Parts: sequence; structure tokens; C-alpha cells
Amino acid sequence: MSPMSPPPLLLLGVALALLPAAADRYTPDWASIDARPLPAWYDEAKLGIFVHWGVFSVPGFGKYSEWFWWNWRGAKGTDEMKFMEENFQPGFSYEDFAPRFHAEFFDPDAWAEIFQASGARYVVFTTKHHDGFANWPSKTSWNWNSVDTGPHRDVVGEISAAIRRKSIHLGLYHSMFEWFNPMYLADKASGYQTQDFVFTKALPELVDLVLKYKPDLIWSDGDWEAPDTYWNSTEFLAWLYNDSPVKDIVVTNDRWGKGCYCKHGGYYNCADRFSPVTPPDHKWEKCQSIDTHSWGYRRNMKLDELMDLPSIISDFVNTVALGGNYLLNIGPMHDGMIAPVFEERLRGVGGWLDVNGEAIYATRPWRVSYENGTVPVWYTATASSVYAILLKWPQQNPFKLDAPNTSNSTNVTLLGDPTLLKWAPVNPKGLTVTLPEMPPCPGNAWTLKLDGVA
Amino acid sequence: MSPMSPPPLLLLGVALALLPAAADRYTPDWASIDARPLPAWYDEAKLGIFVHWGVFSVPGFGKYSEWFWWNWRGAKGTDEMKFMEENFQPGFSYEDFAPRFHAEFFDPDAWAEIFQASGARYVVFTTKHHDGFANWPSKTSWNWNSVDTGPHRDVVGEISAAIRRKSIHLGLYHSMFEWFNPMYLADKASGYQTQDFVFTKALPELVDLVLKYKPDLIWSDGDWEAPDTYWNSTEFLAWLYNDSPVKDIVVTNDRWGKGCYCKHGGYYNCADRFSPVTPPDHKWEKCQSIDTHSWGYRRNMKLDELMDLPSIISDFVNTVALGGNYLLNIGPMHDGMIAPVFEERLRGVGGWLDVNGEAIYATRPWRVSYENGTVPVWYTATASSVYAILLKWPQQNPFKLDAPNTSNSTNVTLLGDPTLLKWAPVNPKGLTVTLPEMPPCPGNAWTLKLDGVA
Amino acid sequence: MSPMSPPPLLLLGVALALLPAAADRYTPDWASIDARPLPAWYDEAKLGIFVHWGVFSVPGFGKYSEWFWWNWRGAKGTDEMKFMEENFQPGFSYEDFAPRFHAEFFDPDAWAEIFQASGARYVVFTTKHHDGFANWPSKTSWNWNSVDTGPHRDVVGEISAAIRRKSIHLGLYHSMFEWFNPMYLADKASGYQTQDFVFTKALPELVDLVLKYKPDLIWSDGDWEAPDTYWNSTEFLAWLYNDSPVKDIVVTNDRWGKGCYCKHGGYYNCADRFSPVTPPDHKWEKCQSIDTHSWGYRRNMKLDELMDLPSIISDFVNTVALGGNYLLNIGPMHDGMIAPVFEERLRGVGGWLDVNGEAIYATRPWRVSYENGTVPVWYTATASSVYAILLKWPQQNPFKLDAPNTSNSTNVTLLGDPTLLKWAPVNPKGLTVTLPEMPPCPGNAWTLKLDGVA
Amino acid sequence: MSPMSPPPLLLLGVALALLPAAADRYTPDWASIDARPLPAWYDEAKLGIFVHWGVFSVPGFGKYSEWFWWNWRGAKGTDEMKFMEENFQPGFSYEDFAPRFHAEFFDPDAWAEIFQASGARYVVFTTKHHDGFANWPSKTSWNWNSVDTGPHRDVVGEISAAIRRKSIHLGLYHSMFEWFNPMYLADKASGYQTQDFVFTKALPELVDLVLKYKPDLIWSDGDWEAPDTYWNSTEFLAWLYNDSPVKDIVVTNDRWGKGCYCKHGGYYNCADRFSPVTPPDHKWEKCQSIDTHSWGYRRNMKLDELMDLPSIISDFVNTVALGGNYLLNIGPMHDGMIAPVFEERLRGVGGWLDVNGEAIYATRPWRVSYENGTVPVWYTATASSVYAILLKWPQQNPFKLDAPNTSNSTNVTLLGDPTLLKWAPVNPKGLTVTLPEMPPCPGNAWTLKLDGVA
Repeated sequence: MSPMSPPPLLLLGVALALLPAAADRYTPDWASIDARPLPAWYDEAKLGIFVHWGVFSVPGFGKYSEWFWWNWRGAKGTDEMKFMEENFQPGFSYEDFAPRFHAEFFDPDAWAEIFQASGARYVVFTTKHHDGFANWPSKTSWNWNSVDTGPHRDVVGEISAAIRRKSIHLGLYHSMFEWFNPMYLADKASGYQTQDFVFTKALPELVDLVLKYKPDLIWSDGDWEAPDTYWNSTEFLAWLYNDSPVKDIVVTNDRWGKGCYCKHGGYYNCADRFSPVTPPDHKWEKCQSIDTHSWGYRRNMKLDELMDLPSIISDFVNTVALGGNYLLNIGPMHDGMIAPVFEERLRGVGGWLDVNGEAIYATRPWRVSYENGTVPVWYTATASSVYAILLKWPQQNPFKLDAPNTSNSTNVTLLGDPTLLKWAPVNPKGLTVTLPEMPPCPGNAWTLKLDGVA
Repeated sequence: MSPMSPPPLLLLGVALALLPAAADRYTPDWASIDARPLPAWYDEAKLGIFVHWGVFSVPGFGKYSEWFWWNWRGAKGTDEMKFMEENFQPGFSYEDFAPRFHAEFFDPDAWAEIFQASGARYVVFTTKHHDGFANWPSKTSWNWNSVDTGPHRDVVGEISAAIRRKSIHLGLYHSMFEWFNPMYLADKASGYQTQDFVFTKALPELVDLVLKYKPDLIWSDGDWEAPDTYWNSTEFLAWLYNDSPVKDIVVTNDRWGKGCYCKHGGYYNCADRFSPVTPPDHKWEKCQSIDTHSWGYRRNMKLDELMDLPSIISDFVNTVALGGNYLLNIGPMHDGMIAPVFEERLRGVGGWLDVNGEAIYATRPWRVSYENGTVPVWYTATASSVYAILLKWPQQNPFKLDAPNTSNSTNVTLLGDPTLLKWAPVNPKGLTVTLPEMPPCPGNAWTLKLDGVA
Repeated sequence: MSPMSPPPLLLLGVALALLPAAADRYTPDWASIDARPLPAWYDEAKLGIFVHWGVFSVPGFGKYSEWFWWNWRGAKGTDEMKFMEENFQPGFSYEDFAPRFHAEFFDPDAWAEIFQASGARYVVFTTKHHDGFANWPSKTSWNWNSVDTGPHRDVVGEISAAIRRKSIHLGLYHSMFEWFNPMYLADKASGYQTQDFVFTKALPELVDLVLKYKPDLIWSDGDWEAPDTYWNSTEFLAWLYNDSPVKDIVVTNDRWGKGCYCKHGGYYNCADRFSPVTPPDHKWEKCQSIDTHSWGYRRNMKLDELMDLPSIISDFVNTVALGGNYLLNIGPMHDGMIAPVFEERLRGVGGWLDVNGEAIYATRPWRVSYENGTVPVWYTATASSVYAILLKWPQQNPFKLDAPNTSNSTNVTLLGDPTLLKWAPVNPKGLTVTLPEMPPCPGNAWTLKLDGVA
Repeated sequence: MSPMSPPPLLLLGVALALLPAAADRYTPDWASIDARPLPAWYDEAKLGIFVHWGVFSVPGFGKYSEWFWWNWRGAKGTDEMKFMEENFQPGFSYEDFAPRFHAEFFDPDAWAEIFQASGARYVVFTTKHHDGFANWPSKTSWNWNSVDTGPHRDVVGEISAAIRRKSIHLGLYHSMFEWFNPMYLADKASGYQTQDFVFTKALPELVDLVLKYKPDLIWSDGDWEAPDTYWNSTEFLAWLYNDSPVKDIVVTNDRWGKGCYCKHGGYYNCADRFSPVTPPDHKWEKCQSIDTHSWGYRRNMKLDELMDLPSIISDFVNTVALGGNYLLNIGPMHDGMIAPVFEERLRGVGGWLDVNGEAIYATRPWRVSYENGTVPVWYTATASSVYAILLKWPQQNPFKLDAPNTSNSTNVTLLGDPTLLKWAPVNPKGLTVTLPEMPPCPGNAWTLKLDGVA
């Protein structure tokens, strides 16, 4: 016997290990995992809100502020080094920001109300970013979590409950790797031959999150340095789909190890800024931050670095028209407030969806995604209707759409107004529509609903 | 196969496990471990300095300040709760003290010089107390160690090196349990049926300390809530004595699990404040803090709560006369200074040893330990001499000693003065000695050296 | 001679005292002071930006955050007391916020660029609010100013220079009284019989500001508890108008002592929220904060507490049509940033002025200020044109204006478009105008320019 | 009339000015002031404790830590600049230390008990050092005093009351100048032609201290850059001696303007470290800090930089024998504690005085001050006795004193023991005394009391 052999099963417990194999269960291999159908709620939801909040919100500085620690200490970025030198005492470390993550104004119900007002049907929250700081009382992240220091609150738990009270789906972002965790670095130094970090930190925390908060979505990240076999990803997913309390409803993305993205897992995020030009044949999601420079809050952001509402609507419509979901990101401030400029954008999207949501939720891409005859137009469709979403108000009236084939039963309306609009067929295809006076529209995009077209 | 089975050997590595068993090796049972002879340096050393330093030095408050966290949050002590309420913002946690453990004046060579000046032959330093804060870059204590926060220095490493430069033996204090570590608490809640904490934290750290700093002494503590089988103590000690880099020189104490103390391990500390009245038959050590209220620094300590030099000398002499070592404790300040009042005591002991050390170092208890005819007298002895240490200067001259049996070759001197003193035998035993004028003595204790007595 | 008589002239220096009286000089009485014509630049400017920044920006909390100190310690407001109890250590005082007024991102040129983009022609900055904290190195406010603590910068000086580089007029806000200044409180306790505070603090600082920064406008405040004779206001104003370096250009408001407002001084602010319904016969100014709850920054402000752009434009137009200037307030954050939501509002106003500024700058009230036949319309005028500013886009086309009397030479255009619009006279007065398609407009207000009407 | 002429009498009030001149009053000139007899209590007191405490106690760093601000920012001392660079954020200013002067353990009665135990008959406390920080709620030092920030307590008031409760005389240290006060700097720049600082700050505060705390002693300092005519010193002293509430009891020193010390005022401090070799003909005082490197607390002081008890006793005895008072200094810590090493010294002096105080209090220099035949001996005397204080215990017995002339009625005792000692006259003068066994003595100095000698 080894003098210091570990116990036979660590942390995750005997229960998980003793579950019987069965014929109708997912097996821990990609062929089986990838074959699972995506739960329907996700494709219908279309809009999610991505929330990056953590210790990085305290310095709130630099391009991609959520990468502050790495940019400063890893990449030795000029801006970050200067910022620290000029504003903090020598020896001040990233860890020293944690007690200042005070969150005194954090009101999860106020957040949830804003998210609901945006029209989002799911929210994805950073439970743990690459800095490893757990926003919940993880017992494998002692003294580096939001209950032991900083807010002294179970941030994930409070947000989860508030979001649920608004009937919004709960997504949990989880970074697999942790830049500076010495356990991870030791595994990495071994060429990922050892898996101490995976078995004492990464997987126990993922399982803990699933069991505690029962997420509808797991947004995995930070996987890319190591193969999925290091992360034990297929084993985790098999357990998640077979035996976890969310096995029937949970959705995951595709970041489960080097080479996985755009290939394995649930829906695809693919690379950051993935922008297909035709509808991909697998459900996908585009994530986009209102602050074009950062996912985490930047205290020194300026207006011209932020997306305005028309840009957001345009990007959102483009994404949905190509079959994607749109995950719109904000970074709350360290004190728990959502900056009013973000609140305004979110409520603006919601205001636009109040009128145009019919063209978005639960739609699918249409035969033609896009045309740009006089103004840019994106198409979506349901079983019964086609929606042409105009990103500018046309100067000409009547206005011409090229793609739809009309019929005798064709009806055209502008969403928000029940009046049937005059239209005329164009030969060989398309139609002209006589538009009303331009209606006010918060997002500068207007939807023509076409019934009886093909 | 379990979906999330851990790797076969965790953290401590294959090397330790694969060592061949051999006939002349210690086996992981108390009979074998207890049979190991104590390395000789320890008994000869007599005086060690105990140093309690850590995050607890920042609040530096309350009876047993090193227990501050527990006294405040665990025991909900009135003083500690009041102190926190009156002086810190609501929500301030013990962890939030760590960034203030700034150690700006910490100069390990200055410490070592003071320790050397005290005459101590070993130093025992708190690598990790019950708060779990590691004073070295432990990779299993990420963000809760002295490199990631606070001093941003490898405190154990710097102290070890400085002490070695003065040829003082290095002892490392290590607490097995950690009050608030959720891994430990989970094991405890299982009735110590699980050992996750032991295998992912306690043992990896002990082994890491041994391999990195090669201590001459391990001062184990915090063991008492759980049996040694939980801690895997005999396995650790067998490795320590068989295969570790310090296997020949290392000394340990007796705190290796519930019921162990005064019974198993190396030398005995027994219970705190163990005060035998006759020499025990097993090597023992008394630890005693100059601040009688605390081991860690108390910012609000007052003079009358501190031992003065004569009390220290008296206690030290008593201990050595009964075969014990004396481990005299100080708590440095959070900024790295040793309070001058402690420095004065330590230098005072050293000044006394400069004159009287011959009666202390490498001595053994004598046939008679103590007499109190006119003034209190403790005896020690070497192969050739007997030392009578007087704790008061006698009012009568000549002065009478009851225990020694004189001979023709008996010589008497006062340490510090080579002059032979006049003496006369007393019938049936004992002798009278004509003392010189009272010499100045820093510690108010004087030694008569008796040669040729029995 | 009194043993401790003060020197004959204190602080303000001999020079001011020895100036010869002359026939054409203002005398220190209201009749003379009030008779001074208002320098022309002010009435032409129409739009100013009011900036509240100081130590109060650090807590950034509560209704009227710039009154935080008073609300907390003076009025003992429930919210403020709870906020302090929950988030700060006992004994934390308002003064203790000063070192945290760090201003690390403060870039006065970036501020000036935003102010310029808003179309404002003057800026009024808080040199000293009721807390007495001087935003410049006042030698009579040692250790309670922005150079000795906090930003460690001459904030007033830097802002003044940056504003001047953009050719914007510089206004300095100055509070006469200081809530908690013991010198003021002693004067107050004397029934304002002593004037120690006035002569050692208030007046020396006012004079220092004038001499150092040469403001175009002094926005006096905090005067209301004491008569102008206590403040020595007429003497100060006589010096300002006769002998100061800004004697020809400077404009002041009307807050120079109890009972003064709406009656004496330069232009009138009258009471807060003064809203005349017909053009007053004295130049006036309306100040209004974008954050309807506060002049200083509130870290926990929410979107629905802020004015949106159409509300601002409407209020601004209303004010100008009645002969007033509009002083639009923002409170920058303690770190020196202007919140993007404020930046967006200011740039929005500027975008609107780019198109409609002709109807605002250097205009005067018209014969009729307002009509509300179909949509609300405000009128302004110059020597040659009348401007009808529509706060909504009419549903009917042609659209009818009631007040103008047309002539043969009447021309109508929409600002932003040189095309002459078709119009027709209405009997007995008024006209109908055929509007073009609704043009986009940032502020939701459109201007019809009418030439050749009466 | 000047437009901004100040009121005729500022701050100090009419009352002081209107007092009638009288024949028996002190006039504001040195001849009159210097002629005032020194109140008797002072010469009898012999021992005072000097206490330096203030914002400088927070950094607690560098040679003469109470000069930290100047050493850092004025003299640009290498150590101080390095200390600030390494330990504080850029821009951190001296003023920023004030909120950290927290004084959480400050217990004035505990201080007073220690002072009493030292045998001191007066205490001199720093009400305001050269940094200008007022340790009381001075209304002319708003926001730079101990009530508005830091301790948020009237430190002077609390200490005064506690000292009085122990019947110890109260002395108040007051610095005239303030290094960085812009009012003072402006006066200085005028060649001291203006006196704004004197009349709005220095004198109002001195008078405020006298009226509020009724000190028995004023220890003036910081006078040396300007002549006493600038400070208006004779006027102040005339008021103090004629009309103040402490006019009969108050004692002052000699620092009242450039060139004053050792020449004018009350008793003389002369230059720092003034060490006469024969008794001066004017009452004087030696002030001496236990920390030989600093008056204010130094957090990094080391034992060998501190005076030990024998050195203190020796210096004290020397001073008294030459007619001086001894003002022994300590610097408490920023948290309000007196370091135990200082407490030990103070109690040690008191222990020595318990035995030897008869040779100190209310004595006067003797005909011969010093002899050093075999050991150093200082003489003091009262009307009836002569005291020979031995700084070492003589090796020879009997021991010879050279100076006293014996008589038939000569009696010799050792203080602390009533036994008459054997003695014999020496021809032509002096005597030999047969000493007892050396008695223990805390301060290593022993007193022979000689009655009936001349």
C-alpha cells in the first residue's frame, strides 16, 4: 500500500460512480454526446443577456477588463502596468482587489427587471472567470470566492433566484482554466499528463454549480489550452445529460477542449466574433458586448466605444435571420449597479421587441436571409408568416421587396399597426408596398409582416 | 468505470508510492515510529524561539490573538465582536486582513540576529496556523498565502535561509486542521470518514514544506479533533523518517492525532502548560510565551501582562533541570518588527547564557533537581560537573547547599569568574560556600559550578 | 494699543483699499450695482453646462448627493445614516472621503470636448460647494482642498484652461456659506454680528478665484442664511465691476444675501425651479440637472430618474423662448469620468443644435411665446426671422400655425433643409405649412424658420 | 472706507483689548515679561514627561519621525522618499495619513497612570506640531484636527482631564510655525511684514488652548524663523500673565522668536541638547527622548537605539544636580498604545524615585555638583541634607566622598534603608562611608543621604 495513497473517490462522491449503465444513456464519447437533440427552449429564446461581473470589475480598466489580471501580470501590458504603478502602492496584487468588490448596491431583482425589460429569454452569468474567483461559496475555492471576501454574498445564488422569479432561463458561464492557479500550471507543465486541477477544482466546481443552481444552460469557456480528454469533458457531459437534475432541459455550448468548438457539444459559439454569411446547419449563438472594448466593466469607457441601439438591433436581427441566438453582454460596476447607458440599451432592445418581437422569437431563417435593394432587409419566418426587417426607413414610397413570391392571399402589415398596407406584385417576383408615414421606432428598424407569401 | 474517477495518485506523486519496502525501514505504525531515537542535536539545544506570525498579527487583538478568527466568528467572543464592530466596516471579514499583512519592515536577517543573540539553538516558525494561511507559496493554498497577498514574499523561505545563515536549527510549525476550511468541515461532518482535506491539503502541504525547506524539526499542531488514522500520520512519519531529505536529522513532536500527545511521535509537548515536577522519562519541551496572554502579537498588550527577564530565566532553568527544552515565544508585529520589549527579553536571556550557558547547553538533569534551603536552587549536570543555579542571591554568607556530596577534589566557582571559592563540607552531606560580592547579572540567577561532587 | 489687535488690513491687501473713488465707478450699494448693464455675451450664449464635482462625488449617494454631508450629519437622513452604517467603519467622517477623491481618469480636455460638442457656450464649475472643499489651492482652505488631498491637482485651474482652449466662457460656482465651518457657525451664533468667516474665508477666496482664474461668470450660492451686509456683497461686487481684471466681461447671478434673489445682482436665478410663464423683464437662467434627483453624481442612479433627450430639448426650448438661459447640470464621477449616459445626453443636445441652433443662439423672445394648436410650439426670433419650434411632429399635413401674420414676402423652411416649403395664409391670421416627410431628429423637436412674418 | 476692510478686532475678541492698563501689570516688553518670578511648582517638580503624538505617528518612520512631512517633502530625504515610494500609492500625501490616525486603543487614564507611576510631576503634550494638525477642535484648523478626522476625539481635552485626575501638572506644547501652511508661507515670503498667519491662526489657537484647557505650562516651539515681534509674543505673554485664567500658575519656556531662547521668557530650554557643566543662573530644562533617534514614535525602532534605564537615571540625576528639570519624551503609537518598552522605562524611573525621590524633588544644586573619585557622584541638597547619588556601586568599601565637610552631628544613610552607616572623616575634608551589601536598584544609582555636612 502506498503510504500516501488518496481515497478511492474524491470529492465528487460515490453516488455518481455507482449509477448503473443503461441502454438508453449517453456514453462519454462525442458521437453519443453530439447526438443529443437541443432542448427546444433555447432556439425559441433568441435573445440572452451575458453578464461579466467579478473581481475584475473593481479595477475596471483596460481593453477586455475581465482579462485585467492576465493583461497586467501575464502579458505585461503597458496600459495596465502604468495604471497600477500610478494608482496603487507597490506590491498591490490582483488578489488585493477582492475586498474592494463590495457590491453595496447589488440588487438582483433590479437586475432581473432590466433583463426582463430587454426582452431576453435567458441570462448567462459568470460564475467563475479565468481569474478563478468563484461568485458562489465553492468549497474548493476557499477564500477566493464571493462569500468569503468581497460581497460576502452568494452572488450566483441570488442572481439565479431573481432571474427565475422573472421566468428567465438561467445560464452559467464557467471557465475551465484559471490563468494563475498553481494546480493548473503544474498540470500544464506536465503536458496535461496530470489532472490534479481537473479533479480537485474544475470538475468539482462544475458539478457543484449544477447541483446547487440547476442551470438551464452551461456556457463553458477557458478550455482551449488542453484537450477535452484532460478536462474529462465527455464524462462530465454524459453525467449532465444522463443523471444530473437538469438532464432534460440543460443546454451547453461547444467549448469543451482544444479543437472542440464549432464541432462538439451543444450549440456552437465557434470562435469569438463568428459571423456566418449563410445560416449554418447547426444551432449557433453570437455573443457581443455593448462596450466594444470589453466584456467586463471599464470605468473609463467612453460613449463612442459603445454600441448604440440601432447597431445592436441590426446585429441582433442579422444573427437571428441566420439562425443564431444573440447573447448581448454588459459588465456591471463593482458596486452592483448597471450603468444607465447599458440600462438604456437593454430597455431599448426591449422596446423594439415589444413591437417587433413577433419577427424574432421562435422564428427560423427564411429561404432568403437578406436583400439590399434600396435599404438593408433581413428575413425571418414562422410556419405562417415571413418577416422583412428593414434597417433603414426607405426614401422611396412605395417600397420594393425582391425576394417574396406573392399570392392572392398575400397580406402586408407593419408590425405595431394592424392596418393592411397596399401592395402590388412585381414581375417576375417581389412586391411593392405602400408604406405609411415613418413611425417612431426606438431601434431604427421596422418589420413588414408578409402573410401568404412563399 | 466511474465518469469522474480521480487519477490513481494525487498530488504527492508516484515517486513516494513506489519506494520499495525494506527490512530496516520504519513502518507506518506507532510501535515502529516511536522506536526511532531522537536526533541528538535537539536535547543539547535546550533553548528554542517560537515565532507566531501571520494574518492574525494584523488585528493583533484579544487573548490568544492567533485565535482571533475563531474567537470572533467561531466562539463569538464579546471582546472580538466589539472590536470589529467599533473599528471596521460591516462585512469586513478575516480574509480582508490579509492585504494589510504588509510586512514592510520584515528583515529576516535582523530577526535571526536577535534569535542568535538570545542563545537559542533552534527556531520554530508558524508556516500555517489554524486560519490556514500559508506563509509560503503553497500551490494548494492559492490566494491564501503570503506570496499571493499580504507580504508578497516567501516568508518561510526567507526566514529559513536567514536562520541557517546563523547556524540555528530550523523548526516549522504546521497546523493540521483549519477552522473554517470547507473541505475540512466536510470531512468532519462525515465523522472523518472522508479524507479529502487530508489528501488535497494537509498532507500535500506538509510534504511540500519538507521538500522545500528541509526542516530540522516539525512542530505539529491542530491535530486534536481527529484520530491519527484520519491524518494518515504514521504514513507521513514513516515517509519522513525513511525517505525524506531530512530523514536523519529531523525531530518531531507528539501532536499527530487525538490521544497521541504525551504518547506517540518524537519528543513530547503533552498538553499546553505541561509542568512535570520530576524529570519525565521521555524528552519533552515546554513552550511559553513572553506575552502571557497570547502567542501572536497583541497591539494592546501592557507591560504587566509580559514576563520579565527573571521570570523567564527561572522558568527556563526549571525546565532544563527537569530534562526539558524551553521554547520561548514571541509574536512579531504585522509590519515585520519585533517589539523592542521582546527584543530586550531575548537579548537578556542571551546575556545570561553568555555567563551561565555552560550550566544549560548539553546538560542533563542531576540526581537532585531542586532544593530550597535558603534560596531556590536548580541543579543540572554534565559528565564532569554539577551546576547549582541560584534564583536569588542569598542574604547569608557563607551559603549552604544541601544536596551535593563533596570530596577531596571538590572545586567551586561562580560562572563568570574563574576564582576558586572557599567551601566547607557539611555533615552528613552538603557544603557551605563563601560567596563573593553579588555580581551583576541580567537575569537574576547565578550559577555555582561544582566539580568533584557526587 | 490692544495687545492682540490685528493688522489694519487683512488678506485682501492694501491695494484694494487704496483705490481712489471716481465719478464713473460703481458704488457699493444695490442701486449702483443693479444698474450695471449685463455683458452681451451671456444672453447670446443660451446654453451652459453646470458641473458639480467634489468630495461629495465619492460617496455619490442619496437625493441631492452634493448635500450628502448635511443630509447625513445635519438632517440625519435615514438613507444616508443607513448607508454609512452599513458600508463604513464607525467613526468614518465626511472628511475621510477626501483622500478617496482620486480623480485618476480626470482629463479636462476630454470634458471640454464633450461640453463643446453639447453646443454650450459657457460652463459653470463648482469651485467650492457648501462642504467648503476648495477645488483649487486656496491658501485659506489648507488641507481641505484638491491640491493638498484627493486629486492633488488644481482642478479649477485645469478645467479653466481646458474650457478656454475650446473658447467656451468660464463660470465659477462659489458657495458663500459652509455648513460646518466653525468660523461661520460662530458668526451665525452671533446673529451675524461678527464677520470673521467673511473676512478670513469667504471674501478672500472669492477674490482669489477672480484674480487667479479670471472668470466670465460668478455663480454665487449659499448666501441665504445671512443678509448681504454680512457677506459684504455690494463691496465685493463694486470691486469686481470697478477694479477686478474681469470688470468688463464678468456676469454674476443674484444670490448675494437673504432676500436678494430675483431682485439684485446680475441675471436672476430666483428660487430653484423658477418657471415663469411669460418672458420676465430681467435676464434669467434656469438650471436643471439631467439626474432629476441630484446635482452631484449618484452612484446608484437609475435610468428612469434621468431626463431623456426630448425632455431636455423641450425644457431648453421653453426656457429660451421665455428669454432665459439654460444651465444643464451633470455630476462627474469621483474618478474623473463623465458617465456615458450623461455624455450621450450632452452630445444629443449638441446634435440638435447643429441643426436648430439658429433658432436658439442670440435669439430673443417673440411677440408670442407659445401656442398649442395641434402640437406644442415655442417661438423665438431674431431681427429678421421668427422660429417656430415643434415639440412633436404633427399628424396632420398641412400643419397650421396660429400666431404669425404672413406677408407677400413670407418664406418658410425647415431648419436642416434649404427647400422652401409650401404655405398658405389663414384668415384672419396664421398660416398652414406643407411639411416634408418627418426628418430624423435627435431631440424630437423640429424648427420652422419663418421669414417675412410679423 | 475700504470696500473690503476687515472688522476692527478679529477673533481674539474685544474683551482682551479693552482691559485697562494698570500699574502692577506686565507690559508687553521683555524687560517686564522676563522679570516675572517663576511659579514655584515648576522647580520642585524636576521630572516631566514629554509626549509627541499626532498624524506623524501613523507613518512612524525615519529619524525624528515627527518631522516626517518635512523630511519627505521639504528636505526630500532619501529614506522618507523611498519609504513612501515603496509602500504607498503615487500621490499619497501626508494629509492622507490623518484618517488612519485611528487611536482605537487610546485610553488617557491608562496613560496618566503610567505617567504617575514614573514619578513625573508634569506632562507636556503636543497640541499642535509643525505639521499644524491640531489635537483639539480648533475652529481655526477646520478639517485638520483630531475631532474632524483621525481619532474624532478631543485628544488634548481628554489627556488634560486624565492628567488632572492624577494631580499632575498639565503642559501644552505648541508650535508657532507650520511648515506648509500657505498663510505662514505668505507671511514668510513678505519678510514677515504681513502677520496674517499670526492673527488668524497662531495666536487665536494659543489663546484658545489657554482658555479651554488652562495649562500650567506652555512649551512654545517652532518660533525660530521669525522675530518675536512677528509672533506678537510679548503681547501674548503680557495677556497670559495679566489676564488669562492661568496667570498665577502658568510657566512658559523661552522659544518666543528668533534669538529669544536662553535669553527671554520663562525657564530656558536653550538649544536642543543644551548641556551645561555648571549650574546656570536661570532655571532650565533638558528634554530628552527615550528613543534617541526620534521624539515621535518610530515603528521600526530597535532596542539599541533606545536609552536603557541606567542611562536615563544618569542623565536625569546630572540634570537635576545642575539645577535643571528633566523632560523625558515618549512617542505613543498611532493606535493609542504606549509601547511596553517605553512603559518599562517610565515605571523604572518611578521605581527608582520611590527609593531616591527625596534626593530629587524640591532639591537644589549643592555647593559641589559632581565628583568622580572612584565612581561618578552627583550632589543635590535641601535646606537640611546633602544627597550624594552614586552612578556605580563602588568596588572599594569603605568608600570615599571628597566634597562634604563633616561635623559632629553628621549622619549618613543609604536611601531606602534607615540604618545609620559607619563613617569617618578624611583630612582635610571628605569622609569615608562603610557601605552595606549592594542593594538591588532598578536604575543602577544609589543615594547616600548626608545630614550635618556643609
